[in-house]
Amino acid sequence: MQYDNKSLYDGLVASGLIIPTGEPGVFGRNAVFEDVLERFNGLVTQLAQADGAEKFTFPPTLAREVFEKSGFMKSFPQLAMGVVSFCGCGKDHAELVSRIADGKSYDDLMTRTGVVLIPAACYPIYPSFTGTLPEGGRLVDMTHWVFRHEPSEEPTRMQSFRVREFVRVGSPEAVIEWRNMWLQRGLTLLQSLGLPAQEEVASDPFFGRVGKMLANNQREQKLKFEVVVPVISEENPTAVCSFNYHQDYFSKTFEIMQANGELAQTACLGFGLERVCMALFKHHGFDPKQWPAAVRSKLWP
Amino acid sequence: MQYDNKSLYDGLVASGLIIPTGEPGVFGRNAVFEDVLERFNGLVTQLAQADGAEKFTFPPTLAREVFEKSGFMKSFPQLAMGVVSFCGCGKDHAELVSRIADGKSYDDLMTRTGVVLIPAACYPIYPSFTGTLPEGGRLVDMTHWVFRHEPSEEPTRMQSFRVREFVRVGSPEAVIEWRNMWLQRGLTLLQSLGLPAQEEVASDPFFGRVGKMLANNQREQKLKFEVVVPVISEENPTAVCSFNYHQDYFSKTFEIMQANGELAQTACLGFGLERVCMALFKHHGFDPKQWPAAVRSKLWP
Repeated sequence: MQYDNKSLYDGLVASGLIIPTGEPGVFGRNAVFEDVLERFNGLVTQLAQADGAEKFTFPPTLAREVFEKSGFMKSFPQLAMGVVSFCGCGKDHAELVSRIADGKSYDDLMTRTGVVLIPAACYPIYPSFTGTLPEGGRLVDMTHWVFRHEPSEEPTRMQSFRVREFVRVGSPEAVIEWRNMWLQRGLTLLQSLGLPAQEEVASDPFFGRVGKMLANNQREQKLKFEVVVPVISEENPTAVCSFNYHQDYFSKTFEIMQANGELAQTACLGFGLERVCMALFKHHGFDPKQWPAAVRSKLWP
Repeated sequence: MQYDNKSLYDGLVASGLIIPTGEPGVFGRNAVFEDVLERFNGLVTQLAQADGAEKFTFPPTLAREVFEKSGFMKSFPQLAMGVVSFCGCGKDHAELVSRIADGKSYDDLMTRTGVVLIPAACYPIYPSFTGTLPEGGRLVDMTHWVFRHEPSEEPTRMQSFRVREFVRVGSPEAVIEWRNMWLQRGLTLLQSLGLPAQEEVASDPFFGRVGKMLANNQREQKLKFEVVVPVISEENPTAVCSFNYHQDYFSKTFEIMQANGELAQTACLGFGLERVCMALFKHHGFDPKQWPAAVRSKLWP
């Protein structure tokens, strides 16, 4: 298998699987792409069925107050996407329209709103945990669009994509055991689809000089794992599934207690749905009808 | 049936169907809410099946260049949501973090990005029509999160919600005939679910003084219809389905030609999926298990 940055993108476009929009990392998906995505997400649902997770869906916008409290801007300001709006009068509007017509900036005519875009699929749920958890903690299942400001021609690096996310909150032991179980489940699922998936200790893209220390610390403590598959590079395989153990970071921030009165801990895991699709297209070809029978029978039983 | 602004919101929250986030018009949906939404969307899929629409999914972000070209900021600047990001260095980051800690504005530290949030579900598709259409035109089917800057405690007025959208592009006759067919389909579908749905000539919320004229013109020409259901008010029923005939507005902007070389025309229609759910909860109660048998058997056959 040959890996490079451009051939995957060109193949996805040529086969109609993705529709470019002129903005890097922003493209449409066609029905074939969406079918693969939904089928894979269905396999995750099957794996999770016996766990009895509570299912929620939050919109792509998050209350700015919650976002600021979360500390995201301390660690990953470069990836965050804020939301602004025009709140002016008729005179301001005339100026706005004239600036757009002239191709000029109109940033100063826009005002921040009460929302930002959700930077990771788990963020909206933490404030709803505030208080004392039921015995045994909670487990939540969500599929969300998430947003990263990192425009790139590299097809797996999108400005917006969907994540199938699970969040576990409870005792440290329960949280770690659950994370380990899913790490194995994720590996097995992806390998069963003919992908050379492997497990790796990983770190998040913390900002700046202090960020390098935070990333090293995260690696040393093995707080983040990824399941990776070579998609655009063999040396730097792409994370298609990510597991973050936050210890008591979110529980302290949002005051989440176990039933026994102790501070809770949290972990989350997410399947990057578009990336899984792209890994499948890379390894099995752009036409799912031609995929190996074993892979087809799993996705379309 | 009694209608008021607050009892629907309180009922949705008390029954766990929606989860408040502290920001007006931004809330989570639970599994029961999502099941109703998906079932209803499935009925729309059934209605549309024979039409052979092409299905696409675009992310919630839209290339800013496309958005500016669309003219949305001329007509509805107050509803638009732009996207900004932090692009500064380490020193700027220290300032950013300190401002957030002090609860101060940091708008001047944020820079506009290449994207905005999609203001209506049809916007991402028009640029892909540029050029000459196949004989008979095209028909597209999409379900998108859309965004409006209108924070409100009124539950049907959301900052972000999902729309099941169809777009038809082709000759004026084909476009109008298609719109009329769906107007009848939408009415019949909603009435079959026990909702007192009615058809109305409508107008869009154009900005400012000039906007009033544009809205009057739109009504006079019957370019916009809505299917409405009383949800929070009997006098001002809520639009749950909207039909916009754009004539050649988008075709001129994005240079879309019919196979015969003439300028094409476009129309779109959208079901406001959350609003349909809320109309069902209002009219049949907050527990779908208690809904009338005729409604249940349509949604859960």
